[in-house]
Amino acid sequence: MKAIEQGDFLYERLARELETQISEGVYEIGDRLPSIRMLCARKRVSVATAMQSLSILEARGMVEARPKSGYFVRRRRLDRAVEPRPVVSDLQPQVVGVSDIVADVFRQTSGAGQVPLGAGIPSPELLPIERLSKFLAAAVRDEPRHLGVYGEAGGHPEFRKQLARRFSLIGCELAPGEIVATGGAMDSLNLGIRAVTKPGDIVAVETPCYFGILEILESLGLRALPIPSTGEEGIDLDLLAEATERHAVKAVAMAPTFSNPNGSCLSDAKRIRLLEILADHDLPLVEDDLYGDLPFEGERVRPVKAFDREGRVLYCGSFSKCLTPGLRVGWIAGGRYAERVKRLRFISTVTTPVINQIAISRFLEAGAMDRHLRGLRSALKTQVAQVSEAVLESFPAGTAISRPRGGYFLWVQLPDGIDAMELYRLADAEGIHIAPGQIFCPHASIRNRIRLSCGHPVDNRIRGGIERLGGIVRQLQKERLKRG
Amino acid sequence: MKAIEQGDFLYERLARELETQISEGVYEIGDRLPSIRMLCARKRVSVATAMQSLSILEARGMVEARPKSGYFVRRRRLDRAVEPRPVVSDLQPQVVGVSDIVADVFRQTSGAGQVPLGAGIPSPELLPIERLSKFLAAAVRDEPRHLGVYGEAGGHPEFRKQLARRFSLIGCELAPGEIVATGGAMDSLNLGIRAVTKPGDIVAVETPCYFGILEILESLGLRALPIPSTGEEGIDLDLLAEATERHAVKAVAMAPTFSNPNGSCLSDAKRIRLLEILADHDLPLVEDDLYGDLPFEGERVRPVKAFDREGRVLYCGSFSKCLTPGLRVGWIAGGRYAERVKRLRFISTVTTPVINQIAISRFLEAGAMDRHLRGLRSALKTQVAQVSEAVLESFPAGTAISRPRGGYFLWVQLPDGIDAMELYRLADAEGIHIAPGQIFCPHASIRNRIRLSCGHPVDNRIRGGIERLGGIVRQLQKERLKRG
Repeated sequence: MKAIEQGDFLYERLARELETQISEGVYEIGDRLPSIRMLCARKRVSVATAMQSLSILEARGMVEARPKSGYFVRRRRLDRAVEPRPVVSDLQPQVVGVSDIVADVFRQTSGAGQVPLGAGIPSPELLPIERLSKFLAAAVRDEPRHLGVYGEAGGHPEFRKQLARRFSLIGCELAPGEIVATGGAMDSLNLGIRAVTKPGDIVAVETPCYFGILEILESLGLRALPIPSTGEEGIDLDLLAEATERHAVKAVAMAPTFSNPNGSCLSDAKRIRLLEILADHDLPLVEDDLYGDLPFEGERVRPVKAFDREGRVLYCGSFSKCLTPGLRVGWIAGGRYAERVKRLRFISTVTTPVINQIAISRFLEAGAMDRHLRGLRSALKTQVAQVSEAVLESFPAGTAISRPRGGYFLWVQLPDGIDAMELYRLADAEGIHIAPGQIFCPHASIRNRIRLSCGHPVDNRIRGGIERLGGIVRQLQKERLKRG
Repeated sequence: MKAIEQGDFLYERLARELETQISEGVYEIGDRLPSIRMLCARKRVSVATAMQSLSILEARGMVEARPKSGYFVRRRRLDRAVEPRPVVSDLQPQVVGVSDIVADVFRQTSGAGQVPLGAGIPSPELLPIERLSKFLAAAVRDEPRHLGVYGEAGGHPEFRKQLARRFSLIGCELAPGEIVATGGAMDSLNLGIRAVTKPGDIVAVETPCYFGILEILESLGLRALPIPSTGEEGIDLDLLAEATERHAVKAVAMAPTFSNPNGSCLSDAKRIRLLEILADHDLPLVEDDLYGDLPFEGERVRPVKAFDREGRVLYCGSFSKCLTPGLRVGWIAGGRYAERVKRLRFISTVTTPVINQIAISRFLEAGAMDRHLRGLRSALKTQVAQVSEAVLESFPAGTAISRPRGGYFLWVQLPDGIDAMELYRLADAEGIHIAPGQIFCPHASIRNRIRLSCGHPVDNRIRGGIERLGGIVRQLQKERLKRG
């Protein structure tokens, strides 16, 4: 990780330094920051660098520029924001029934022209597509023979080697032999969950939980046992332990790092405790680490897989959220279940396109990934902060928002009595796409939350969309009072 | 199809003409064919063309060159060959248990250096890989934006349009809206079978049946109801009708055209009768048409889908067997089940790489596919004939072989009492890879058949492999007599 720190852009480092000073009270709300001239002199940076640092803080809503006076620390709405309450669960296994709603939300809409706060998709302008396409074209030119053969079931050896190296650098040892290339994270999750269950089995999941995992459980005839997430700190491990005592749970499927939708993240201590609970009942963990590469600050979070000495973690990753959704390249490292995963790979699609794996291997080997990730993390941090501020500005009192420390998503608790599905429909009619809370739990019981995706740079269209969204919430509140 | 006939190479047309004359007795066994000089004069072709035509017939074992005397019609072992007996079935649903054997046969072996008579893989030298790779590189260069987005769930519109056009030319109407791009035929079959079943359901299959279909049934907890194939004429429709009367069959999954492994092909009349049986019980057909593009003679066989007026056929295709295994591009046209297929697509891998679909669309649009297929069909016809002759030459009496009219495979019935699994193991130890009959039925009850793949040009290595294989069969016979 040192390489990443050293490679940081100077303006990002300066912005971070000022941010720390503000959060530590060196500069308080209303205080004026050092002038650009002073910053240049003290920090030995150029005017352009100093200005860029201040722009970043301005975009995040931390400081404001007052004409001819300089930059001042701003009273942030975020500081006063309340976090959503944890969702409650009776710890009973449930047959899953979300896919009709998910289909309604994500399949019928073309998405074109809508304000894109719904799908968890990175804006293409944040991705190094031109550069990556050159790697792909070169791979096709150099090694066309891969078009004429199926390729190894587990994926191209170079792809697996590059992944193993990359993870080794963050202290997570993946054996190339346990890695299987996939067509993206959904493919990985399908293989992982299928490898450790059979129809009718019970799988413990977080609540809220990525709807894709719930759809997989539904499509395979598996039952979900929802375990509440406490918010920032992730899944409630005491309740998970209790649930595994009370029911014949066969596996746990969850995202310990910047979980979709609420952005929660387990501490290292909790990761170790999670593995202890799994060991007590000899359970596997299907670890969805789709957002682990996207912390807003500091080092990449080590996956639970890094702490696993018993091969019980089936680690699922993908390049779709951080590099290219279009090449459809993901992977799974199946631990002690690797052979079963490999067999399911063969039975489901035999192999995935090797040439795409080679393009990404070369991109990684060229060191292009870390440089790209620095920019993407910084952009996402800014975008999440901007969406957060805009929500707090436009939504009525009683609104609470998550404080994600990585990833794409903002989890919003609406004032009491507002139905997210109703909000979704009214917003959709006005061309604003959001994800209603209903799709993030087995039986659509989360009714007053929504997920906002922050994958796109916040322009006036998105800002306007959030404002109108707030207007619809207020309208729904009024109607409720009238009816009440 | 006329366009294809007109586009034939002259030497192929002449070879076909001579072949017809031989089969009709114009030239009988031992007769001398017209000399090259006479052929040139009568048929108005060049010496090179006449020689190439005769070489083709020689490769297929129909004629032999005698030095200084000319070409003579050869006594073909094929003419005396017996066809394998149909497999019997008690028409009872069975839990499938083949995947352990399939894994043993196809997963543990690397395949490198082996005599490749096992896997159903086209030799890369028969595929236009360089040309196709140029289309792919151009697609990447022209449209890199597809790397930055997920693409439409059903696949790229141009890909679906090209497929619809192509099938319309053979009298099979596919609506672009019912087509979903997949990662190859196994992906298509999975989506098709999953769309019309739930765990525990009964699916009628042919016996013998492609092991991939059986593995899918096994992995999904479905039961198979095996219906005997009569040999050349395909599945026994009377028995299928009886089975659907006796059991709660939920779907039929089969390859009506050049079925893997026995090469059978339903007549048009039987295709219509099949649809009537399906209509009687309102059943869907998952049609595996992986080899429909590869007839040895005449026009492309029209799929059952072409006769289907009720949307009950889920048509599964792929480019892996006829163009490129490495790009992983297939499709399914789901008929009335298209929406369920689309949902399962989303839940399993969201989408497949659009850029690969574009490369193939452009390849089709350029008219490069039909030209390529002509060469491939001719090569496969020759290879199947050569493998057939070699088997009849090397294997002991009591051996029977199929007479496929398209595709890759030769289905061989061994003399009574020979166990195919034992033959497989002994051959494997000598570096010869074959597919034992056991993997082509739900419960490994086909014991004295093997499938030989004819995907590779028959060189001395392959010829030697078949000879040694015959030697092992004779050895097993002797041991059996001793033990007997």
